[in-house]
Amino acid sequence: MSLTVNLNITPLNTHFNPKPKTHKTPTFLTTPIYHSNKLTHKNPTFLTHHTHKKMTSSHVIKSSLIDPDGGVLVDLIVPEDQRGLKCVEAEGMVKVGLTKIDLEWVHVVSEGWASPLKGFMREDEYLQSLHFGSLRIDGCRVNMSLPIVLAIDDETKERIGGDKDVALVGPDSNTVAILRSIEIYKHNKEERIARTWGTTAPGLPYVEEVITPAGNWLIGGDLEVLSPIKYNDGLDSYRLSPKQLREEFDRRQADAVFAFQLRNPVHNGHALLMNDTRKRLLDLGYKNPILLLHPLGGYTKADDVPLDVRMEQHSKVLEDGVLDPETTIVSIFPSPMHYAGPTEVQWHAKARINAGANFYIVGRDPAGMGHPTEKRDLYDPDHGKKVLSMAPGLEKLNILPFRVAAYDTVAKEMAFFDPSRAKDFLFISGTKMRSFARTGESPPNGFMCPGGWDVLVKYYASLQAAPSVVSA
Amino acid sequence: MSLTVNLNITPLNTHFNPKPKTHKTPTFLTTPIYHSNKLTHKNPTFLTHHTHKKMTSSHVIKSSLIDPDGGVLVDLIVPEDQRGLKCVEAEGMVKVGLTKIDLEWVHVVSEGWASPLKGFMREDEYLQSLHFGSLRIDGCRVNMSLPIVLAIDDETKERIGGDKDVALVGPDSNTVAILRSIEIYKHNKEERIARTWGTTAPGLPYVEEVITPAGNWLIGGDLEVLSPIKYNDGLDSYRLSPKQLREEFDRRQADAVFAFQLRNPVHNGHALLMNDTRKRLLDLGYKNPILLLHPLGGYTKADDVPLDVRMEQHSKVLEDGVLDPETTIVSIFPSPMHYAGPTEVQWHAKARINAGANFYIVGRDPAGMGHPTEKRDLYDPDHGKKVLSMAPGLEKLNILPFRVAAYDTVAKEMAFFDPSRAKDFLFISGTKMRSFARTGESPPNGFMCPGGWDVLVKYYASLQAAPSVVSA
Repeated sequence: MSLTVNLNITPLNTHFNPKPKTHKTPTFLTTPIYHSNKLTHKNPTFLTHHTHKKMTSSHVIKSSLIDPDGGVLVDLIVPEDQRGLKCVEAEGMVKVGLTKIDLEWVHVVSEGWASPLKGFMREDEYLQSLHFGSLRIDGCRVNMSLPIVLAIDDETKERIGGDKDVALVGPDSNTVAILRSIEIYKHNKEERIARTWGTTAPGLPYVEEVITPAGNWLIGGDLEVLSPIKYNDGLDSYRLSPKQLREEFDRRQADAVFAFQLRNPVHNGHALLMNDTRKRLLDLGYKNPILLLHPLGGYTKADDVPLDVRMEQHSKVLEDGVLDPETTIVSIFPSPMHYAGPTEVQWHAKARINAGANFYIVGRDPAGMGHPTEKRDLYDPDHGKKVLSMAPGLEKLNILPFRVAAYDTVAKEMAFFDPSRAKDFLFISGTKMRSFARTGESPPNGFMCPGGWDVLVKYYASLQAAPSVVSA
Repeated sequence: MSLTVNLNITPLNTHFNPKPKTHKTPTFLTTPIYHSNKLTHKNPTFLTHHTHKKMTSSHVIKSSLIDPDGGVLVDLIVPEDQRGLKCVEAEGMVKVGLTKIDLEWVHVVSEGWASPLKGFMREDEYLQSLHFGSLRIDGCRVNMSLPIVLAIDDETKERIGGDKDVALVGPDSNTVAILRSIEIYKHNKEERIARTWGTTAPGLPYVEEVITPAGNWLIGGDLEVLSPIKYNDGLDSYRLSPKQLREEFDRRQADAVFAFQLRNPVHNGHALLMNDTRKRLLDLGYKNPILLLHPLGGYTKADDVPLDVRMEQHSKVLEDGVLDPETTIVSIFPSPMHYAGPTEVQWHAKARINAGANFYIVGRDPAGMGHPTEKRDLYDPDHGKKVLSMAPGLEKLNILPFRVAAYDTVAKEMAFFDPSRAKDFLFISGTKMRSFARTGESPPNGFMCPGGWDVLVKYYASLQAAPSVVSA
């Protein structure tokens, strides 16, 4: 198995050309690294073709496994024939600078992951998100647990004055989007942090890197994105939009799609539960359940494994046959990570509804981390799945709670934990796994497929070889 | 006007006999102080009579101006004929001690103010309250913005062991209630505080007095309250339950009920907006709008004016004709105060739905206070009404936003603020008002009716005369 993915999605010219990522790209990665997602190699025109088929065949029902929130998938990319005019118009507007992470949010919103949200939140949406984890839209309630907001400083607010529209400019100074019918309101950082994370303790990664340095105002409005956001990091072709994913699920004639959100390498415990989930869905009578293995591709904290390394690791997991490429789609979820536990897991699930997944796997302590100042988990490890199962707007999604997997020292493989023989099981945390890989120590046989493990070992070796670059 | 209220509600024997309040009761208060609420003087048997009438006349529709949350008003008081047996049963159970404020919550829940909540929250309800400000009940969503929880310490948890039911014991050691089918779960105070108040800054009154000293566990379950909660402070007859209020609205043939929550003395600005609201409702075609003037009667912070003084002040406002006794009902809302701004105002409104009010007046910065450590309001003064207007489960309530009233130095009366002649208006804050009353200085003529003002002046004088008692 060594198929290069060719999505055959015509790259659109874009003003956006982000700088290379600042973490060290391991030297052994020179070409696109993910080889197992056989999306289109047999039919390079499937997307267009399928769009046509949808209107004439029974396949039309497939992309309605689950409706996007609000009924219609939001698409904020300006059509090509209007792009020139809009760019000219934007040049006449006050410019508002975006950080790298702001731009990730523009990407997320532009493709409809946050449907029915059509831009950065105005105050009404922001308050509903903070207080209710959801928005009331036309009498219905959709989930919206994270505030998706854009901060500006006093000087920018002053420059905007009474203008109604502004132009958004990426970190490379290219104009990326127009924000229409803007509303500027106070950025009460303390309240935002407290209500999003349930703590204001210092040391929350997203807070320290994004919120604390941000301005004291938030600017909401409707986005018009001048061209699709690209990162030019060799991974853009794996960044399928919700529309593209829905089309692919149709093409594969999926009758169930189960999403697995992750920001870590896949070990055999993860694989066990994904394969077990597929089995359970088949037992329930589904004929063709498709796994959406959906690594998060936006901002992650410094000690997480970088996206490109994870993508290569995931490709090895499929090459080694731990997951079945025929029934798996690997794609990148472009959202930044908050590490906000039960609040954030709702966002992770909601975004996958918009991408067409009708089943969502949730594990222990999703989107959690250690408390930044106390020696304990920040969140109760069970709260994520409990909150998810009760969240407004997620009623239509099937939540599949995780059975805990651990290393069975008797069977010498990852297995579902059996409390009746607890002493036979070894729990290997993410921290422990990273420590193994860093020191070159092998984890127990059967913990992870050898090809996947090698990717991690090489990554950590490259870090140690070039510490000054890493810390840059 | 000097009618003594006679509610003619047979007092029920109760084990509960709370200690007198610790603040100084001004010496000029010797008898029940509220004289203007002409509930029953013409027909002392109206409650029974009316219950009968409801079943035989068209009046039956009246208590359905607005349905209680969940459809049925919760009533957790054990019927008298079962009381003996339940008391015997409770004596065999593990005892869990209640603080004075816990007991106020037992009162609140027992009468159905929190309908459809039937006891202290279990973890599922607690998490929904913290994350969504609402509960999903049988597919419907009801508002529930404040966690209504009971904390226990490690020792109590140990004593309970695996028991299914416990007895709740008031501060005076009398058994008050049974809590059935209990669930014990972690009391993560930091998260509760952050998500409820949007800050974890030290100095929040309810946090310091209630949460910080409380145990590290919460115990949820279904309440059976052995007899109605009474305070024996001369004000019990003004504590009408939601059921009693609904019956009274029926008796008065109200076709609209507008509730005004307050924890401060009524000045002429308040009166202006209440009278203006009535006028607006009449203009809308309502024939008999009734005002529910509904002072909060539970825990308040130390520098707020105590309940008994406020009740006397309110009575003077009606005696002086500032509000019309014929179209006003004054009653006590037994809830403790959180000072949690936009989160708490939802609770204040939701409880009034259960009491039968279909209109709710909301002003600037409801349930707000100054930030405990920074020189600013803790909440944006507009957020309360914004959040209230968007809150899940409150869609059926008519929210009436407050127009700001201030002292018009030209007209020499409280008037709606006119921004076109802002310099003519004087804003008199609660702090400023208390400072006037404390120093014996008169506020501008027309700020408050003289009788009401006298009550405040005498209260503050009594504080200064007996400072040692006050600080006890």
